[in-house]
Amino acid sequence: MFRVELEKERVGSLATVRRLPAYLHLLKQLNADGREFVSSTHIGRDLKLQPDQVRKDIASTGIVGKPKSGYHVPALIHAIETFLRWDNNTDAFLAGVGNLGSALLGYKGFEDYGLSIVSAFDSSPAKVGKVIHGRQILHMSKLRNLAERMHIHLGIIAVPAESAQEVADAMASAGIAAIWNFSPAGLNLPENVIVENIDLASSLAVLSRKLAIRLSGPAEADL
Amino acid sequence: MFRVELEKERVGSLATVRRLPAYLHLLKQLNADGREFVSSTHIGRDLKLQPDQVRKDIASTGIVGKPKSGYHVPALIHAIETFLRWDNNTDAFLAGVGNLGSALLGYKGFEDYGLSIVSAFDSSPAKVGKVIHGRQILHMSKLRNLAERMHIHLGIIAVPAESAQEVADAMASAGIAAIWNFSPAGLNLPENVIVENIDLASSLAVLSRKLAIRLSGPAEADL
Repeated sequence: MFRVELEKERVGSLATVRRLPAYLHLLKQLNADGREFVSSTHIGRDLKLQPDQVRKDIASTGIVGKPKSGYHVPALIHAIETFLRWDNNTDAFLAGVGNLGSALLGYKGFEDYGLSIVSAFDSSPAKVGKVIHGRQILHMSKLRNLAERMHIHLGIIAVPAESAQEVADAMASAGIAAIWNFSPAGLNLPENVIVENIDLASSLAVLSRKLAIRLSGPAEADL
Repeated sequence: MFRVELEKERVGSLATVRRLPAYLHLLKQLNADGREFVSSTHIGRDLKLQPDQVRKDIASTGIVGKPKSGYHVPALIHAIETFLRWDNNTDAFLAGVGNLGSALLGYKGFEDYGLSIVSAFDSSPAKVGKVIHGRQILHMSKLRNLAERMHIHLGIIAVPAESAQEVADAMASAGIAAIWNFSPAGLNLPENVIVENIDLASSLAVLSRKLAIRLSGPAEADL
């Protein structure tokens, strides 16, 4: 698809995008401390990056520093937030309010990223109708229709692996363009649906396995 | 280090380890449904994997299926849990009880992985002494000494980026062998400390940037 190829070019380096939240966090602190300007050397020292890398990362947001004074802190915050679209509020739907979904629903940190979970869905009769962290849980069968009507662009999946694909299909057919997938399932979706995976169980499995080896390892190996 | 090299070989394929939680989840469901045996074809169909891949993954846990009946479900559950050390309880310390740390503290899903957060620490006077999800929050300065005395092997970091390295250093010097890092900071630690990173902000940044491009993209690109 031409459109997808075109977009890939415009997203910029993903490594840069992944670093931007750390910049933003530091800049907001500096701003709160009343600092007006900051140099790439200062940012690099705090974030353990080379100043060259800092200048390159920041340039991708369209901001260029001044030779002596450096970057204007409020302007740089604004540029990064605009680049990530974190300046605008993004309404999201959450599917699945088990342990993980409930934790996500209660996580206030998303506000910093302009992310609002406006509705949450589950298919369990025990959960539908309940109020969790201020939101009344709706039945999963309502997700598709509501997402369409409310023009929701972002869906968060926190259902068990076996229902993840079905939920993702419903989201995609409702016009949701981006899915943040916290289920351990890999999703098969049309090329134009953006997917980012966070797999806690897999990450912990790797950590646990390495730790198991370490703890059971023969002490002789140290000799 | 010889020991680290030796361990790398014994951890097995990381891709396999990452898939094991999905196997475990499916097998526990089958077990709850009273199924005694399952074939690699059945598992493959449910998890969208080739049966060959399933047999290879399972073989790494030391279990071999029988030609006709397949795998014994309870035995396979036990083998995977032993392989990941999820059969034994692992006590962990949590550093940082801001929004994310509090959510982790309240997340009941960790029980399935044999993970118990036994103590949680923070450096904010407003949080120390408070009880969050049943645990009284201790001052960060106590982490090192307590971890040493309680022989804690696993540390979870959910502090802001700027304090992550300091906390990681304290954990490493207390003998904590594995760190699950939820802060956006990259950690510099001795080679013998195992680190797994979960970076929500970076993941959401990538998703948000791709979505921003999609939503602002010229409709003409479709033509």
